[in-house]
Amino acid sequence: MEKVNDSQNNKQTKDNLPNVLVIGPPINITVLKPKHPQKYNLSKPWNAYNSPPLDHFMVENKYDPTMFQALICCAYSPINAIVLQFIPCLKLVVTSSTGTDHIDLSVCKCRGIQVANIGSLYSEDVADMAVALLIDVQIKISAADRFVRTTMRFDFPYCSNSKLGGKRVGIVGLGNVGMQVAKRLEAFGCIILYLSRKKKPFVTYTFYSNMLELAATSDALILCCPLNEQTRHMVNKEVMLALGNKGVIVNVARGPLINEDELVNCLIEGQIGGAGLDVFENEPNVPQQLLAMDNVVLSPHNAAFTTETYMATTQLVEHNLEAFFSNKPLITPIKLD
Amino acid sequence: MEKVNDSQNNKQTKDNLPNVLVIGPPINITVLKPKHPQKYNLSKPWNAYNSPPLDHFMVENKYDPTMFQALICCAYSPINAIVLQFIPCLKLVVTSSTGTDHIDLSVCKCRGIQVANIGSLYSEDVADMAVALLIDVQIKISAADRFVRTTMRFDFPYCSNSKLGGKRVGIVGLGNVGMQVAKRLEAFGCIILYLSRKKKPFVTYTFYSNMLELAATSDALILCCPLNEQTRHMVNKEVMLALGNKGVIVNVARGPLINEDELVNCLIEGQIGGAGLDVFENEPNVPQQLLAMDNVVLSPHNAAFTTETYMATTQLVEHNLEAFFSNKPLITPIKLD
Repeated sequence: MEKVNDSQNNKQTKDNLPNVLVIGPPINITVLKPKHPQKYNLSKPWNAYNSPPLDHFMVENKYDPTMFQALICCAYSPINAIVLQFIPCLKLVVTSSTGTDHIDLSVCKCRGIQVANIGSLYSEDVADMAVALLIDVQIKISAADRFVRTTMRFDFPYCSNSKLGGKRVGIVGLGNVGMQVAKRLEAFGCIILYLSRKKKPFVTYTFYSNMLELAATSDALILCCPLNEQTRHMVNKEVMLALGNKGVIVNVARGPLINEDELVNCLIEGQIGGAGLDVFENEPNVPQQLLAMDNVVLSPHNAAFTTETYMATTQLVEHNLEAFFSNKPLITPIKLD
Repeated sequence: MEKVNDSQNNKQTKDNLPNVLVIGPPINITVLKPKHPQKYNLSKPWNAYNSPPLDHFMVENKYDPTMFQALICCAYSPINAIVLQFIPCLKLVVTSSTGTDHIDLSVCKCRGIQVANIGSLYSEDVADMAVALLIDVQIKISAADRFVRTTMRFDFPYCSNSKLGGKRVGIVGLGNVGMQVAKRLEAFGCIILYLSRKKKPFVTYTFYSNMLELAATSDALILCCPLNEQTRHMVNKEVMLALGNKGVIVNVARGPLINEDELVNCLIEGQIGGAGLDVFENEPNVPQQLLAMDNVVLSPHNAAFTTETYMATTQLVEHNLEAFFSNKPLITPIKLD
C-alpha cells in the first residue's frame, strides 16, 4: 500500500471550495484534477487497492472529518460501514463504475447519503470486450498470436476453433451491456437467449428464468449482470456441466458471479470448452492454473478503459459533483431501496 | 520438404476410380479421404509448402502423367505454368481457398482447364476474424492477455485503447467478406466506407475509388480484396501516412496487398497506430520486428479454419469433383476471362 502524504495539497486548500474525498485509485482523478484544478479541494488518502486507516489519514493531515460532504470512489474502493463511519457528514458517494457492489448501500440509505454511478457509460465498451473475448476463445486469436510470437511458426493447432455464426449465446442479465452484446452478436449470426428476473417485453430473444436451463441450451454464456447476494456464484460446477465440454463462458461483469475454484477445475478437467475473463474473484489475483491454458483469454478488468470512455467518465463524475453542490438532482443516481 | 512415398496408396489403386492429384497441403484432404475412401484414387506428391519436382514424383511412383484429369490444391500450392506442364491431360483445378492468385489462370484458360474455388464459404469466418483483429488492436486483448500471463499483474498500460463505436472503417473490397465485415461493424456503431472498382448500387456506405482518399478519411482499413497485379502493394507508405498515426490496418486477404517492409517501418516509426494481420507477404515468415509490438496482432493465416467450415470445405471440394466427373457444371466455378 502506497500512502500519499496529502499535506502539500492541503497547503493549496481554498476555504471557499467544496472538499471532496477521493477513496481508492479512481481512473478519472488524474484527468479531473488538472483540467479543473480549482473547482474542488480533492483529498486523496491513498492510491492502492488496500483499505486504508482512514482515521489516521484524517489525523495526519489535520483534517476535520466533518469537512467532507462528498467522496469519489471506483470499483476497487470498498465503501463499507467502517469507511463510512469516519466521514460523519458525508452526503454523496460518486463511483466511477457501473457496479455498486463495493458500496454499503443500506448504510447510505439509512444515513441519507446519495449515490451516483456512471450509468450506462461503459455499456458499449464492455459489450465490445464481451464479443471480442467470445470470438477470441472460439477462434483462438490470443493463443495463436502467442504461438506465432514464441515459435515463429504457422502450424498453430487450431483444430478446436469453432464458428461463431449459429451459436446459441445465453446472455445473463439483459440490461444495457446485455442489450449491446445481443445487438453485436446478432450481426454475427448468433442466436440470442437470455436470463433475467422478468421477461423483457421489448425483445424477441428467448427468455429463461432458470440458470441451469439456460446453460443446458446455450453454446456460450456471457455474464453481464450485477453482483449481489442472489447472483454470487450463480455459475457453479452444476451450471458448467450443463453448459458442456464445448461451452464457453465470458465474464465482463464481476468475478464472484462465478465460483472460480470450480471454474478452474472444470477447465482442467475439460468439462467446459473455454473462458474469456475480464474479471476475477480476487482481483488483481488470477488463478495460476489458467496462465498456461490456450482456451482461456485473460483480461485485466479493462473493458471500459478506452480513451474516449475515460474522458466521458471524468466528465460524468464531475457533472454529478456539480449537480450535488448546486442542490440539483444527480445525473446518474442509484435508487436506494 | 517432407516427401510422401505414395507407393502404398498406389497399391490400393482401383482402375475404375478417377485419379485425382493433390498438390500441396490442403486442409481438407485428411477429412476427404477417410470419409469417402473409394470415390477417387488420391495421389499426394508432397505435403509441405515447397514446390516439388512433380516430374520426379511421377517417375518414382510409375505414374503416367496423362492419368490425371483433376487436381486439388490450396492457397499455398503454386499451380503455375511449370506445374501445369507436367499434367498434360488436366481438365480441372479445385482449390480449397477463396483466392486463386496461386493459380496461373491464363494457362488454365488457354488449355481449357476448369477452375473451382470454395466460393463464399469462408466469408463469415474471415469477417469474424477481421472484426476480432480490429477490436484486438483497438483495445489490446492479446497484448493484455500476454501481460497478465507474464507479469501476473493487472496494471496493463491501456492508455492507448480506443473505442470502436463511431470509428470510420474503410473496407477495401466490398465482396462477400467485405459485406459481412460491414454488417458486423455496423452493429458496433462504426461508420462504413468502402473502396471498390465500381460503386455498389445496393449499399448506402460511402464509396471511394481512390485508396489515398479512403485512407485519409478512415480510422481503420480492412483489406478484403483479391490479390492481383492491380492490388499488389496497394497499401504502401503513402497510404499509411494518409491513414495516420492512430490508424489501424487489418489484413485478412493476402499479404502482398501491403508493402510489408514499409508497414514494418511505419509501425517502428509510429506513423500508423497498429495492425491486425492474418496474412503476410512471405508466409510462413513473419517479420521479426513485429514480434515485440503490442499494437500488432499476429494470426497464422487461420481465419477460415473453424471445425464447421473445415467440414463444409471438404464437402464443397468433393461436390465440385463429383460435378466434374459427372459432366455437370461445377458448383463454384471461377470465370476465366
